[in-house]
Amino acid sequence: MAASKCNRLCGPLIRELLDSVESVLFDCDGVIWRGDQAIPGAPEVINLLKKNGKRVFFVTNNSTKTRKMYADKLASLGFNATEEEVFGTAYCSAMYLKSIPHLKGKVYLIGSNAMKQELQSVGIEQVGAGPDPINGVQSDWANVPLDPDVKAVVVGFDEHFSYMKLNRAMQYLSNPECLLVGTNTDTRLPLEGGKAVPGTGCLLKAVETAAQRKAQVVGKPSHFMFDCVASQYGLDPAKTLMVGDRLDTDILLGTNCGLKTLLTLTGVSTVADAKEHQQSGCPKRLGMVPDYFVETIAELLPALQG
Amino acid sequence: MAASKCNRLCGPLIRELLDSVESVLFDCDGVIWRGDQAIPGAPEVINLLKKNGKRVFFVTNNSTKTRKMYADKLASLGFNATEEEVFGTAYCSAMYLKSIPHLKGKVYLIGSNAMKQELQSVGIEQVGAGPDPINGVQSDWANVPLDPDVKAVVVGFDEHFSYMKLNRAMQYLSNPECLLVGTNTDTRLPLEGGKAVPGTGCLLKAVETAAQRKAQVVGKPSHFMFDCVASQYGLDPAKTLMVGDRLDTDILLGTNCGLKTLLTLTGVSTVADAKEHQQSGCPKRLGMVPDYFVETIAELLPALQG
Repeated sequence: MAASKCNRLCGPLIRELLDSVESVLFDCDGVIWRGDQAIPGAPEVINLLKKNGKRVFFVTNNSTKTRKMYADKLASLGFNATEEEVFGTAYCSAMYLKSIPHLKGKVYLIGSNAMKQELQSVGIEQVGAGPDPINGVQSDWANVPLDPDVKAVVVGFDEHFSYMKLNRAMQYLSNPECLLVGTNTDTRLPLEGGKAVPGTGCLLKAVETAAQRKAQVVGKPSHFMFDCVASQYGLDPAKTLMVGDRLDTDILLGTNCGLKTLLTLTGVSTVADAKEHQQSGCPKRLGMVPDYFVETIAELLPALQG
Repeated sequence: MAASKCNRLCGPLIRELLDSVESVLFDCDGVIWRGDQAIPGAPEVINLLKKNGKRVFFVTNNSTKTRKMYADKLASLGFNATEEEVFGTAYCSAMYLKSIPHLKGKVYLIGSNAMKQELQSVGIEQVGAGPDPINGVQSDWANVPLDPDVKAVVVGFDEHFSYMKLNRAMQYLSNPECLLVGTNTDTRLPLEGGKAVPGTGCLLKAVETAAQRKAQVVGKPSHFMFDCVASQYGLDPAKTLMVGDRLDTDILLGTNCGLKTLLTLTGVSTVADAKEHQQSGCPKRLGMVPDYFVETIAELLPALQG
């Protein structure tokens, strides 16, 4: 019932919620850290959850790091975490491609070296990583040499994104059998101090516009992201809590997959945003209303220490 | 009446239509030429129209050439034409910016050297033309030095489009007073042999997504494109014919501005496309139904020679 949602999580409710779940999924940026700084108290929360027998996973749309790179960052900030608990879109995109029967071939990658590594680690060869400068004239661009083994175009965050990459993706996608996969649709990467830079969603929109078709998106709020964790660890959705700072990705993923949801206010979305969705009466927007909210996940600490 | 539209222009109808107009606006690519080849008979049609006292204008969404460059191309293909008869979006964007009161400042340009020249020729300084390679890390990108005199971001076709340009546009546009102007929204540039490369529409979509706002578009089907010609030459819409190969730009512009419209089948759109719009019953789509169609504008020749 919508009216019972979007409650402040406090007092005995906290332990009640934690007792009702076996697994907790955390988004990273804006939830357990901001940039290169841990949210104060977050490492203690994660470490105590595990000590209390909960399974913890890190579920992020950011495609610029491998599982290993995330595990290293988590460790350096004081989180007790392993590579196998990390589900970023670089890794999940590789898993998605592996999950497609008969996709025997290479990937044309608009993305980071981390994505290249995750693809390689599941045996998928890529072409395209790195800069791709422009040369020649329009007729040359339309006739760029294409690798006949490419069966999918994958778009993630790529600081080397360029007109030539956009063109190459379009030429590959002129074959209707070539798949188009996007890591995520986040339009901005928020940084410290209210600043931001363009996110993967902008690059994906350019490719979708050129190719005149929609991408299969791997990242939150797509079901696949949860399925990826759930299938490996046998998660029970009803006994899983999704914790995130974005209503349109984290909370919507939780709703889409039947999880309990907790919004934390250390990132992008506000309680006002959530209430607006709640009062809209629009079924699609109700999926973005969390069950609970906290100012910061540090508010879970007392219940875990008690 | 919709039923009386989309008729094949032939026989005595041709002279009747031509007698009813004083001015004829031609789209270029797919109408009077394809790539670097004139449509057979097109130069004779244009030259005879003028000899018969009609005013002729060339109205193109392509932003990669100055008026001078178009006049040179027209001359080299046998068209009797002057710079002043050419209205491309490079020139019209400059005119659009000049038309905005109190816009005293520079433009951040994602676009060609031709756009830079057209801006300069009306006294508007630009920054941004040419390559803009990526350096540093995310926090550097969010803090790129911005020119405080920039009052508008203009997006046209730019083969040097890159993540850094997208980012710079977004940083300028984080100031809500900075305007966002796009030359056109064509998603593809069609080339010979059914090939194509990504058009300005893809780049504009990326910038709009990052900036989280819509651009003011100068090119067809925007009213501004016709106003630009009409205000300089005192055109009477009811006595003006728009000839084009695209329903969604050329024909829609004509409808939007109260012109007579003629579709030619040497380019992108087909009669089947037009009939589909006609039968849709959707008011928005009816604007894309031409009054008449011809296989090629060469079919106007006999009426002009007679």
